[in-house]
Amino acid sequence: MARRFGVVAAHGKPEAVELADRIQRWLAAHQCQIANEEALPVVWPELDAIIAIGGDGLIMRVAHHYPDVPILGINVGRVGFLALAEREGWERALHDLVHDRYHVQEGPTLAVQLERGRSVLVDAWAINDVVVRAGYQLIEVELYIDGQFVNTYPGDGMIVATPQGSTAYCMAAGGPVLTAGVHGFAVTPICPHSPIRIALVVPEQATIEQVYVSDREARLIIDGEPVASLERGDLVRVRRGKQAFRLVVLPGTNFYEAFRSKFNFQIRPEAQPSRRTRNADTPSGAR
Amino acid sequence: MARRFGVVAAHGKPEAVELADRIQRWLAAHQCQIANEEALPVVWPELDAIIAIGGDGLIMRVAHHYPDVPILGINVGRVGFLALAEREGWERALHDLVHDRYHVQEGPTLAVQLERGRSVLVDAWAINDVVVRAGYQLIEVELYIDGQFVNTYPGDGMIVATPQGSTAYCMAAGGPVLTAGVHGFAVTPICPHSPIRIALVVPEQATIEQVYVSDREARLIIDGEPVASLERGDLVRVRRGKQAFRLVVLPGTNFYEAFRSKFNFQIRPEAQPSRRTRNADTPSGAR
Amino acid sequence: MARRFGVVAAHGKPEAVELADRIQRWLAAHQCQIANEEALPVVWPELDAIIAIGGDGLIMRVAHHYPDVPILGINVGRVGFLALAEREGWERALHDLVHDRYHVQEGPTLAVQLERGRSVLVDAWAINDVVVRAGYQLIEVELYIDGQFVNTYPGDGMIVATPQGSTAYCMAAGGPVLTAGVHGFAVTPICPHSPIRIALVVPEQATIEQVYVSDREARLIIDGEPVASLERGDLVRVRRGKQAFRLVVLPGTNFYEAFRSKFNFQIRPEAQPSRRTRNADTPSGAR
Amino acid sequence: MARRFGVVAAHGKPEAVELADRIQRWLAAHQCQIANEEALPVVWPELDAIIAIGGDGLIMRVAHHYPDVPILGINVGRVGFLALAEREGWERALHDLVHDRYHVQEGPTLAVQLERGRSVLVDAWAINDVVVRAGYQLIEVELYIDGQFVNTYPGDGMIVATPQGSTAYCMAAGGPVLTAGVHGFAVTPICPHSPIRIALVVPEQATIEQVYVSDREARLIIDGEPVASLERGDLVRVRRGKQAFRLVVLPGTNFYEAFRSKFNFQIRPEAQPSRRTRNADTPSGAR
Repeated sequence: MARRFGVVAAHGKPEAVELADRIQRWLAAHQCQIANEEALPVVWPELDAIIAIGGDGLIMRVAHHYPDVPILGINVGRVGFLALAEREGWERALHDLVHDRYHVQEGPTLAVQLERGRSVLVDAWAINDVVVRAGYQLIEVELYIDGQFVNTYPGDGMIVATPQGSTAYCMAAGGPVLTAGVHGFAVTPICPHSPIRIALVVPEQATIEQVYVSDREARLIIDGEPVASLERGDLVRVRRGKQAFRLVVLPGTNFYEAFRSKFNFQIRPEAQPSRRTRNADTPSGAR
Repeated sequence: MARRFGVVAAHGKPEAVELADRIQRWLAAHQCQIANEEALPVVWPELDAIIAIGGDGLIMRVAHHYPDVPILGINVGRVGFLALAEREGWERALHDLVHDRYHVQEGPTLAVQLERGRSVLVDAWAINDVVVRAGYQLIEVELYIDGQFVNTYPGDGMIVATPQGSTAYCMAAGGPVLTAGVHGFAVTPICPHSPIRIALVVPEQATIEQVYVSDREARLIIDGEPVASLERGDLVRVRRGKQAFRLVVLPGTNFYEAFRSKFNFQIRPEAQPSRRTRNADTPSGAR
Repeated sequence: MARRFGVVAAHGKPEAVELADRIQRWLAAHQCQIANEEALPVVWPELDAIIAIGGDGLIMRVAHHYPDVPILGINVGRVGFLALAEREGWERALHDLVHDRYHVQEGPTLAVQLERGRSVLVDAWAINDVVVRAGYQLIEVELYIDGQFVNTYPGDGMIVATPQGSTAYCMAAGGPVLTAGVHGFAVTPICPHSPIRIALVVPEQATIEQVYVSDREARLIIDGEPVASLERGDLVRVRRGKQAFRLVVLPGTNFYEAFRSKFNFQIRPEAQPSRRTRNADTPSGAR
Repeated sequence: MARRFGVVAAHGKPEAVELADRIQRWLAAHQCQIANEEALPVVWPELDAIIAIGGDGLIMRVAHHYPDVPILGINVGRVGFLALAEREGWERALHDLVHDRYHVQEGPTLAVQLERGRSVLVDAWAINDVVVRAGYQLIEVELYIDGQFVNTYPGDGMIVATPQGSTAYCMAAGGPVLTAGVHGFAVTPICPHSPIRIALVVPEQATIEQVYVSDREARLIIDGEPVASLERGDLVRVRRGKQAFRLVVLPGTNFYEAFRSKFNFQIRPEAQPSRRTRNADTPSGAR
């Protein structure tokens, strides 16, 4: 049976657009059906996967528009954590894809609601993170987990991150990196004005609520996009979302190697592992 | 049908022994069957729960001897995280227990093997954590997750912690706190001699391996007990254990409140939460 | 010879204004000359000290207007680190002041210049900190110390703090607390998007330069006040300022006790020190 | 007038011994007087400098034996922070040395006394750090600065570090890096069993006291060498030492570049500084 793939290129990146062309021709020559960007809104539920040529930003936009469809990211951006295939390896990647040599790594999403009094001002979902974030001055947020009060945090705000989002703002704020397959979310305060600084990891079933208790400028940021200004008393509720975030993971993909090279996470660059290592075709987090 | 409980008191703590007496009399007066410490090795698989009167150390010893049996800890120690009931509230706690007003919180354990060449020197399991730890001088360990090389860490060693163990040495080393129900383990370097310091959280299915690559004195420590000296080339492999660690959680138990009070985790002690909070009879982590 | 003091109250705080009245009467009754807020711009260089009744914000404003004059802060704010005397103890504090029972703790200031091409857009000085700070999206700054390149930091920006400012945003960002008398400034990245997170402490003589290399919204913030929007290529240069920040420190003032209580920096609140401690009339940092 | 230099090579490193030979011949050919290791105990106060060929360990040993003499370290070890010249550049380094093209960077030392009751068990001094350190189990230490109680720290102990020692255990424990010329010492808890984790920097004039209040095994470690076992009630007092630690700093030496390369402290290895940088012949910390 014919495979069917969507192809999307980052706008404004000529090399992405050009590569999309070549990929479409390659797929056609390999008996695959292709849906380009115009066709996607109609056909996406029937696709095997969407090939996204760009950086992590593109992948997140595609995932927001076409949830639950596996995405193969081909990185033409700078630091791509979700775009697992590098540009030079596109042909090898497509070979694996059309011959079913991949697995789909499924990550949870975050459902987020912003409530003001009895109104729900925002009802959305996130792939990476939901952030309550100060403008240029210190704010205060109260944190509740499953209805239990944790603390009032003065500082720059608070981040709730999925595993796939944990290498982004969460890590930057000093929080942990959750690798794929951890059934939990990281809750990390941003620059808390306190010597008390611990990050929490809570189960996927948890309800994470923040109450904004300052009058200063602050925003609710979803996957890096500011979506609303916050007012005193606003409640931001985060739970696991209904959608799934699905990534196509090809043979040879190695999260730790990517992490090591992309973040220069090499304590001693010259150190050679004493044991032979293998690539992770079926890592522990795969399902 | 009659309930059946084990009762164990911390040795060398007269107030624990005295309280054990009163608890046994109370249980007898409430039509419960009792197994004291001598009877436990025979009857433990048939018990509803074991009541452990002491601190976290006692609970860990009991859990190691009688795995899978739910344990109700009554704290007569200093800082008890596993001993959820406080001493003064013992009668209320027993009432809840005999009337089935509790749930059992189940945490994973860690299976640990120490391999030297072709020999398995240690084959054990842990409730809280498995630690490779330097003596008084810097050591080096290589970390592998699912066979993938992560880094060579010069420093004081490395901690693999369960959620219930994450508030112990893991947090002390700057790692995250994993709350009950997170299906993951925290991997935290101890004082890594590097500006690179990130902690990782990996899925429960992961295989976490450390290779010891120094000649200096170091030990393998399981749940706080040094169990073996390490030699260059030793491999410490950690995976999820077969056993479960089961805690009796009574109504009104509140992890965050306990964390706040026991670790003085109160950023602004005078801050009052703006919302009414509830006790966590069925927290997200319960099963 | 008659002492001469300025008296300033925080605007909009009736209790501060009322206390200022009582303090002026008390000083007059004790043969002191008084300069109220209107007189200050003229007479300030001749004053023994200015008594500032309010919080840390007021003290910083007073210090900016009347540099080099010793300030005695009487705290009617919430968390006062510079306002060393508590409100209830005002009379005792004034007694000590008029009887010369105090020393003057002198802290360095930061001279800051913002250069765009050949123009100097900002030429100012700070008591606590100079911050390059992102709006709601990640920015990049290059850091140079004494003309040497340190790193390019992607993240939320960078903080240069004096010792007196180190308990503010610097500590919140994970930087160290520099106690009074340390001849150095702390340079702390804000949420650096990297597993590399170290804070630096550089000598007072150092030249600390940041080059802003992003196009996104960011601001230069001096002592908590946003003073300019930043553009790509802007250079922010920080050196020790000519002004001094002088605080009146009374007998019995105890920085660590203040730190312990105001930030709830008490690891074990119930722990009692085993040795008798003394108050710090002449701490190591005094000059 | 003839220069006079000591030459010391790391024992057990043939390449260091061989290089020492060549250096002695080179110096002789350039009209310098030479003191070899046997002559040093007699002549050291009259030397211009000691050339130490080895790693940081050798430099520390030399500095302990011959305090106050400037040391030029030529690195044949792995990671040398004090050994500023690299092995390949030895001839260039000697040229600069004999033509007076260097400055002497002077760092403070730490005087340390261990008191048990009325006895002084240890009276020594340190170049890098003084550490109270747990064996394999948690200990408690009380910290006092200038006689003021700071906190009781449960954990693995506490580090007091000089600027030159701050890149060693201090940084590993999460403390700050103090660059040369900061007149302060870093006080950093090791894995404190608390969510409260802040590091302090105190002035050089401070008196830093730790009281050991556990019964478990712990040691006093000076510059990496365990010197005494600790008992409950022991007092470890640290102040600035009388000796100075003097390093020969050659033109072109760049602390930040060394830090970047030796610790792989490169957030984005590919990032190029936008401004031309200069080498630090006379950094701010030089005297």
